[in-house]
Amino acid sequence: MPVISFDIGELTKEQKEFLAKEFSESASRVTGLPIEMIYVLFNERKFDNVGVGGVLLSNQE
Amino acid sequence: MPVISFDIGELTKEQKEFLAKEFSESASRVTGLPIEMIYVLFNERKFDNVGVGGVLLSNQE
Amino acid sequence: MPVISFDIGELTKEQKEFLAKEFSESASRVTGLPIEMIYVLFNERKFDNVGVGGVLLSNQE
Amino acid sequence: MPVISFDIGELTKEQKEFLAKEFSESASRVTGLPIEMIYVLFNERKFDNVGVGGVLLSNQE
Amino acid sequence: MPVISFDIGELTKEQKEFLAKEFSESASRVTGLPIEMIYVLFNERKFDNVGVGGVLLSNQE
Amino acid sequence: MPVISFDIGELTKEQKEFLAKEFSESASRVTGLPIEMIYVLFNERKFDNVGVGGVLLSNQE
Repeated sequence: MPVISFDIGELTKEQKEFLAKEFSESASRVTGLPIEMIYVLFNERKFDNVGVGGVLLSNQE
Repeated sequence: MPVISFDIGELTKEQKEFLAKEFSESASRVTGLPIEMIYVLFNERKFDNVGVGGVLLSNQE
Repeated sequence: MPVISFDIGELTKEQKEFLAKEFSESASRVTGLPIEMIYVLFNERKFDNVGVGGVLLSNQE
Repeated sequence: MPVISFDIGELTKEQKEFLAKEFSESASRVTGLPIEMIYVLFNERKFDNVGVGGVLLSNQE
Repeated sequence: MPVISFDIGELTKEQKEFLAKEFSESASRVTGLPIEMIYVLFNERKFDNVGVGGVLLSNQE
Repeated sequence: MPVISFDIGELTKEQKEFLAKEFSESASRVTGLPIEMIYVLFNERKFDNVGVGGVLLSNQE
């Protein structure tokens, strides 16, 4: 059942490969659950779709 | 207030029509709430954005 | 990878058993994915933690 | 840590600018937390990916 | 369909009443959708269940 | 803006400390973003609130 969701800007495929592996390994090691049961979901967002401090990230570049 | 979210790969419109109907009918029957109040949100994902067992689905095809 | 999340008020164990079964069977039948891969997550909420139309549900009873 | 997520149809950039500002100001004023810590995440959806009352929004237009 | 979720520490009922009203009014005014369709979901968390900068909030007090 | 959410059964405080640190360090190293911006949210669930393969986890023990 473990589900890890990651809300982030846009990532390369290599970054996602790396994070899927590292997040899952950490979660499996700490919980003792088999890594096969662990799902990682990437929610990539354009900077128009994120606000920090009340201002869109696309207006902060 | 009932909100059903479905994280899944890519679906056809027919599949979404079918699932929106079935999920909502099940939820309404079991909770007794009117079906009009029930929202279904589909979160479709490319296989690059999903990891299972530490490996991206796009690398498992 | 399919993950179904259900945001709802409080449910009995029987209601959750019923919905876990129905949601998963619908999703498996429509997507063709094995039911063992399908996770259902219930997010139960007290009515103080839900607003509809700008008013908390606990103030609408 | 405050994170505000908004599941909605498609918005213009102006609408997102306005909402990121208003949501964050309300949250900061009420919680007393600095506005810089408040994240707003917009989940824009096509009407094919939303069901209300068991029917896709794209079939209700 | 608009659903606003707010991940936050613990709030009083007055704070939730205020935010449910303000968030919904902002969303209705900006999107033009009737306020009755807008759901607000509060995800309250103990500080043990939140990490910022790699450290649990409960260890930062 | 990076937000990592972890849906899981119940964890000890030590497990959460460890995961908050590891998840955040991995995310910061891979994205290059400062670790202070990274939020980790733990969604702990009783086994009555999770279904796998159409059956509640509490009925699978």
